[in-house]
Amino acid sequence: GAGADNDLYINQAIVFIEDAIQYRSINHRVDSKSLWLYRWYYSRTCQWILSLTITVILALAFIEEPSSLTITSDVRYRLPAWNPPCGLTESIELLCFLVFVLDVSVKSYLIGWKEFWKNKWLMAYILTLAVSLTDWIVSLSFFCKESVRIRRILRPFFLLQNSSMMKKTLKSINSTLPEMASVVLLLAVHLSLFTMFAMLLFARTKDNQQDKEWMVYFRNLPESLTSLLVLLTTANNPDVMIPAYSKNRAYSIFFILFTVLGNLFLMNLLTAIIYNQFRGYLLKSVQSSLFRRRLGIRAAFEVLSSLKEAPASAQQSCVSTGALLQVLQKAEMDSRCKQAIMRSLKMCSCDQLSAAQFQKLFEELDKDAIKQHPPSPEYQSHFMQKMQFAFGHPYFGYLGNVVALANIISICVVLVMDADKQPSERDDFFLGAINCFFILYYLLEMLLKILAMGLKRYLSYPSNRFDGLLTVILLILEIATFGVYGFPHPGWRPEFMGLLSLWDMVRLVNMLIVFRFLRIIPNMKFMALVVTTLLDLVKNLRAFAGILVVVFYAFAITGIILFKGAVVPLGNTRYIGNKANASVFSLWVNNFCIIFQGKKKVISWCSAHFQAEVIYCLLYVLFVHLICRWAKIYFVAWWLISSVIWVNLFVALLLENFIHKWDRRCQRESLSDIEYQRTVELMFRDVLEEPTEEELMEKLHQHPHLQLCR
Amino acid sequence: GAGADNDLYINQAIVFIEDAIQYRSINHRVDSKSLWLYRWYYSRTCQWILSLTITVILALAFIEEPSSLTITSDVRYRLPAWNPPCGLTESIELLCFLVFVLDVSVKSYLIGWKEFWKNKWLMAYILTLAVSLTDWIVSLSFFCKESVRIRRILRPFFLLQNSSMMKKTLKSINSTLPEMASVVLLLAVHLSLFTMFAMLLFARTKDNQQDKEWMVYFRNLPESLTSLLVLLTTANNPDVMIPAYSKNRAYSIFFILFTVLGNLFLMNLLTAIIYNQFRGYLLKSVQSSLFRRRLGIRAAFEVLSSLKEAPASAQQSCVSTGALLQVLQKAEMDSRCKQAIMRSLKMCSCDQLSAAQFQKLFEELDKDAIKQHPPSPEYQSHFMQKMQFAFGHPYFGYLGNVVALANIISICVVLVMDADKQPSERDDFFLGAINCFFILYYLLEMLLKILAMGLKRYLSYPSNRFDGLLTVILLILEIATFGVYGFPHPGWRPEFMGLLSLWDMVRLVNMLIVFRFLRIIPNMKFMALVVTTLLDLVKNLRAFAGILVVVFYAFAITGIILFKGAVVPLGNTRYIGNKANASVFSLWVNNFCIIFQGKKKVISWCSAHFQAEVIYCLLYVLFVHLICRWAKIYFVAWWLISSVIWVNLFVALLLENFIHKWDRRCQRESLSDIEYQRTVELMFRDVLEEPTEEELMEKLHQHPHLQLCR
Repeated sequence: GAGADNDLYINQAIVFIEDAIQYRSINHRVDSKSLWLYRWYYSRTCQWILSLTITVILALAFIEEPSSLTITSDVRYRLPAWNPPCGLTESIELLCFLVFVLDVSVKSYLIGWKEFWKNKWLMAYILTLAVSLTDWIVSLSFFCKESVRIRRILRPFFLLQNSSMMKKTLKSINSTLPEMASVVLLLAVHLSLFTMFAMLLFARTKDNQQDKEWMVYFRNLPESLTSLLVLLTTANNPDVMIPAYSKNRAYSIFFILFTVLGNLFLMNLLTAIIYNQFRGYLLKSVQSSLFRRRLGIRAAFEVLSSLKEAPASAQQSCVSTGALLQVLQKAEMDSRCKQAIMRSLKMCSCDQLSAAQFQKLFEELDKDAIKQHPPSPEYQSHFMQKMQFAFGHPYFGYLGNVVALANIISICVVLVMDADKQPSERDDFFLGAINCFFILYYLLEMLLKILAMGLKRYLSYPSNRFDGLLTVILLILEIATFGVYGFPHPGWRPEFMGLLSLWDMVRLVNMLIVFRFLRIIPNMKFMALVVTTLLDLVKNLRAFAGILVVVFYAFAITGIILFKGAVVPLGNTRYIGNKANASVFSLWVNNFCIIFQGKKKVISWCSAHFQAEVIYCLLYVLFVHLICRWAKIYFVAWWLISSVIWVNLFVALLLENFIHKWDRRCQRESLSDIEYQRTVELMFRDVLEEPTEEELMEKLHQHPHLQLCR
Repeated sequence: GAGADNDLYINQAIVFIEDAIQYRSINHRVDSKSLWLYRWYYSRTCQWILSLTITVILALAFIEEPSSLTITSDVRYRLPAWNPPCGLTESIELLCFLVFVLDVSVKSYLIGWKEFWKNKWLMAYILTLAVSLTDWIVSLSFFCKESVRIRRILRPFFLLQNSSMMKKTLKSINSTLPEMASVVLLLAVHLSLFTMFAMLLFARTKDNQQDKEWMVYFRNLPESLTSLLVLLTTANNPDVMIPAYSKNRAYSIFFILFTVLGNLFLMNLLTAIIYNQFRGYLLKSVQSSLFRRRLGIRAAFEVLSSLKEAPASAQQSCVSTGALLQVLQKAEMDSRCKQAIMRSLKMCSCDQLSAAQFQKLFEELDKDAIKQHPPSPEYQSHFMQKMQFAFGHPYFGYLGNVVALANIISICVVLVMDADKQPSERDDFFLGAINCFFILYYLLEMLLKILAMGLKRYLSYPSNRFDGLLTVILLILEIATFGVYGFPHPGWRPEFMGLLSLWDMVRLVNMLIVFRFLRIIPNMKFMALVVTTLLDLVKNLRAFAGILVVVFYAFAITGIILFKGAVVPLGNTRYIGNKANASVFSLWVNNFCIIFQGKKKVISWCSAHFQAEVIYCLLYVLFVHLICRWAKIYFVAWWLISSVIWVNLFVALLLENFIHKWDRRCQRESLSDIEYQRTVELMFRDVLEEPTEEELMEKLHQHPHLQLCR
C-alpha cells in the first residue's frame, strides 16, 4: 500500500543520510528488512563488538604458546611465561571466527549477490576464514602440538579488511610499487657492482698484516655483500673502511663513492618517488569522501521526492519539509548538527524544498564546530571584579609558566648535585620542601583561575584541563607522601614503607612536574603550529599505522616460526629445549615496536648478551653459522619494508600535511582567536570540487538496488 | 663627435649582449675605457686566472704546516709529512692576495662608487683581504712560528664571493634560518625534557647489578644529554636501551617515544620546512636569470636605437640591421647561435628592427641545441650493405650487453672460487684466458660498429665513446700483460715483473670490465631517467657544493686549530711533540669528505686504533677527559650542519628536480629520439614568465650609469 511504501521511502532516506554522515557507500540493498539489518550492522554496539573481536584475536599472540611476555627480556633471568592449557586460546579463537563468519555473511547479503562477485576483498575474507577454520581443526586434532600454525600469519587480514581507509591506502601503495621496485632494482645493481669492485680491490695478499680489510669484511661474496648492505644502512659506517684507510687514504674514495651514490642519491630518490606518488593522495581521498556524502544526501532527496503525499509538479521534483523533519528525527547524527538543520528548516518557512535547497541544508555537516567558551561569572563586589581581572589576565598564565620553569630548573639542579651520590647518602629534604612549595603554588593558581573564570569556562580550555588534572594528581601524591613519611625535615630519608619508597614517590612527582611543563606549548606560536601539525598527522596516519601493525604482526609471527628455539641459554639447563619461551628472536620480534635497524640490532644484542660471557661463545658461533643466513634475509626484508619504505611514506605524508598547513597559516592568522576543530576535510575545503548534478544522478542510476521512478 | 659617440654605442651594445648571454647584471660603468676594462675583466683568461688563484690558495692547506697528507692515516706507521720551509707557502699566498686586491679594485671601479657602498659583499671582500694581509705580516714577523692563523679560516670566503650563484643560494639558505632555528629549538626542548625524564627514570639504586643503565649512559647530566643526542643520530640506537630493557621491557617505551618524536617527527619536520622554502627556489633563480637576459638585450636595443645614423622616427625607436650585424660580429658568443641569428637577420630582409623583432632574434639563445648525428657511410657493395644493416642494428648492441654480462658473471664465479685461496695457490690461467677472449670480442664489436656507422657517427654517441675508450685501454693492458708475462697457460702465475704484478694487472682488467658494464644504463628506461636526473642534479647542485666546500674547509681548519696535537701515539717516541703531523683530528678533518656522523666516528676510531692495544689505554682516558668536551661541541655543530641541514637541502633539491622531471616525462616521450642538451633553464621553460616591457624599461631607467636619451 501507499503507507507501507511511504514508510519504506522514509527508512531509505534515513539510511542514506546516515551513510552521508559516515561517508559510507550507498550501494547496498534497500528493502525494509535489509535496511533494518543494515542499521543494526552499522549500529555502535555491533561495530564495537567487531572491533573488540579483532583486537582479541590479534592480542592472542601475546599469550599463545611460543610467546613469552615476561618482565625481563634476558633469557638467563626470566621465569617461564604462563602457558595457557590447550583449548583455552583455541576456544576464544573459535568464538572470534564465528563473529567473523556472521560479519562476512551480513556484509555479503547487504551488498547483494551481483556486487559480491566483483568484491575481491570479501572473497579473500571468506577464503581466509575457511583456511583459518581448517587450520584450527588440524590444530585441535593434534592437541595443540603441531609446529606451524598458518592461521596466525593470516590474522592481521581481519584488521585490514575492516577499514575502508586502510584498503584505500593499500591500493595507493600498491600503485607505487612498480616505481619503488625500479629503484630497489637500481639499488641491487649498485650493490652488486660495488661488491665486485670491493672483492677485486680488497683481495687477499701475501702479507697477512696488510689484508685486514679482506679478513674482516670482504672474505667472500656473501660477506662482501653483507658489509656493503650494512654500509647502506650506515650501521657500520666508519668501521668498515678503517683497515683499508689505515693502509692507504685513497681507499676511502671507494667508500665515499658508494655512500654518496647509494645513500644520498638512490635512497632519497625513493623518497622523491613516494612523495610524488602521494602528493595528491590526501586530496583525492577527501574528494571521494565528499562525493559519497553528496551522493547520500542526493539519494535521500530522490527517495523522499517520490513520496506519494508530494504534489506531482512535473518540472521539478521536490520534498516536503514535514517528511524531512520526520527523517531528521529518526536519523542518528550529531545533536548539534541536527539542531542546526532543524533551525534552518524552520527559518526557511517554505513548504517544499528543491534539490539545491536540500543539499544546502545539509552543508551544516561540513562546517566547523566553532567552540564557544562559557562566559566568566559576573561578580558584584568591586574587590572580586579586580581579582577577576588580575587572575583572568594572560600575564597570570605567563607567571605560572615562569614558576613551572623555575621548578624544572630547581629539579635539574638537585639532579646534577645528586647524580653521583649513593642512595644512602641522598637527602630528600631539599627536593621535598621545594616540591611542596611549588605544588602549593600550582594549587593556588588553579583555584584563583577557577575563581576568575568560573569552573565551566576553566574546564573548556584543554590546556587548563591538562594543568588541573596534573595539579590534582600531584596534590594527592604529595598528601600521600606526607601521610606515610611525615613532613620533610633535614635527613628526610625513611626506609621503604607502603607501596612505594619515598625516593620513588619524589621521582614520580618530579616526572609529573616535568610533564606538566608541556603546558607552555600553546604559548609559543611556532611550537603550537608544529604540535597541531603533528596531531593532524596522527589523525591522517591512522590508516598507515594500521597497515604498519599488519606488517609488524606478520613479520613477528614469521620471526617466531623461523627462529623458534634458535637461541637457548646454555648456562641454565632448566630452559634447554623449552622452546616455548626460548626464542630470543621471537621475544624481540614479538615486542615488535623495538626493532628498527635489523642487522645492527642482532649484532649489538649478541655483543650485549653473549660476548662478555665465555660460556656463550660456542653458542654464538653456532648461532651465527646456522641462523645467520635466514636471519639475514629476514632482516633485509624487514629493513626494506619498515625502515626504507614506511619511513619514506611517513616523510611524504608529513611533507604534504605540513606544506598545506604552512601555506594556510597566513590566511588563518586573523581568525586565530576562534578555535576550530580541524579535520582533514576542512584542511582541503578551499581546493575541493563540488560534484555536479549530472555526476550524482549518473551514479544514482547505477545503483544496483535502488530503482528511481524517473 | 658623432663617430666617437657611435663607436661608444656599438661597444655598449656588444657588452650588453655579452651580459645577456652570460646572465650578468648590466649595472656597470658604460664609458669607453670602463667598457674595455669590463671586457678584459670578464675575458676567459682573466676569469681563469682568478679561479686558479682561488684553487691555489685553498689547496695550500694540504701542504701547510699542521697538515700531513701521507699515504697511511695511522699515526704509528706513517712517515713525517713534507714540511715546506718558512716563506714558500707565504710567498704563494702573497701572490694570491695581490691578485685578489686587483680583482676587488677592478670590481669596485666597474660598479661605481655609489653602488659600492650598497654592496656588502665587496666591503666584506676588502675587509677579509685587509685582515688576511695583516695576519700574513704577523706570521712573517714570527718566522712562521705563530700558533693561530686567522687568515686560514677566512680563505673559503674568496671562493664564496666569486660566484653569484653561491651568493644567491646563501641568501636563500639565510632566509630559511629562522624557521630552521625554531625546529632546532624544539629539538633542544625535546632533548632536555627527555634528559630530565631519563635521569629521574634511570637513577642510581642500592643494588649495583640493577643500575647498569645509570652506570653506562645516564651517570650525570652531560652524559645523559650526550646519550640521548647520539640516540637522535641513531648511532647508539639499540645499545643505549639494552640494559634497561633487560631489566624491564616497559623501559623501551621511553626510548621508542623519544626516537619517534625526535627522529620521525622533528627531523622530518626540518626536511618539510626546508623543502617548503626551496620549492620555488630553482624556478625563482631561473626567472631572475631570464630577466637579466631580456634586460641586457633590451639595453642593447636602446643604445643602438640612439645611434645618429638612424632616422628620427618619432613614434617608435628602431635599430638598423647594419648596426646589429656590426655588433654581432664583434660580440663573443656561441658560434652556432651567432650563425643562426645572422641567418634569420638576413631572412628578415627589412632594414629597421622594432624592439619586439630585436628580442625575437635573440630567442635563439634560449633554444635547445638539437644534436644531429653525422650520417652513416653509404656502401656500394651489396655485402657491405648487409653487414652495415646487421651491425648497425640495435640487436647487435643488445648482444654486446649480453656478452658483457656473461663476462661479469664469469669474473664473479672466479672470484667466489678463489676467495679463500692463498695468493701462492692462485692460478691466473682461467681468468686470463677468459678475459683475453672477451676483450677480443669487445675489439671486434667496436670495429664492426665503426664499420657500420662510420667513425664520426660512432664517436657522436657518448655511450660509444665510453665503450670504445675502455676497450682500447683494456686492449693496451692485455697486450702489455702478454708482452711481460707471455701468453696464458695452466699454472700461469709468474713472479713480480715490471711495474705491476700479473695479479694486479688481472685485477685492474677486471675492474675496468666491471666499469664497462655500465654501458647498459641507456638501454634501461627507468635507469636512464634516474641517471639523467642525477646528472641534472649535479649541475644544479654546484652552488650548494661550493657552499659545502666552504663549510667543510672552515670546519677542517677549526678542527686543526682545536685538536692540534691532541692525540699522539705514545708507543713511538719519535713522534711525541711533533705537532706538525701528530693531530689525528686534523687528519680526519683535513681529508674532509669522510666524517659524516661525528661522535660515532670518534668512538669507532678510538676503538679501532686504541682499545686493542693496552699501551694506548692511558692515552685514551686522557684524551676522553681533556678533549671530549670540545670535541663534543665541535662534532654536534658538525652533525647539525653537514648531516642535518645539508642533507635536507639536498633532499629538497632532489625532490624539486625529480618531480619536475617526472611530470614532464610523459610529454617528452614522443620526442625521445631527439637528444636535447638539457639545462635548468629549459626544464622550467613552460612555466617561466616573460618580463613585460614596462618592467624592463623601469629597470633600465634605474641604471646608475646609462643615461637613455628619452
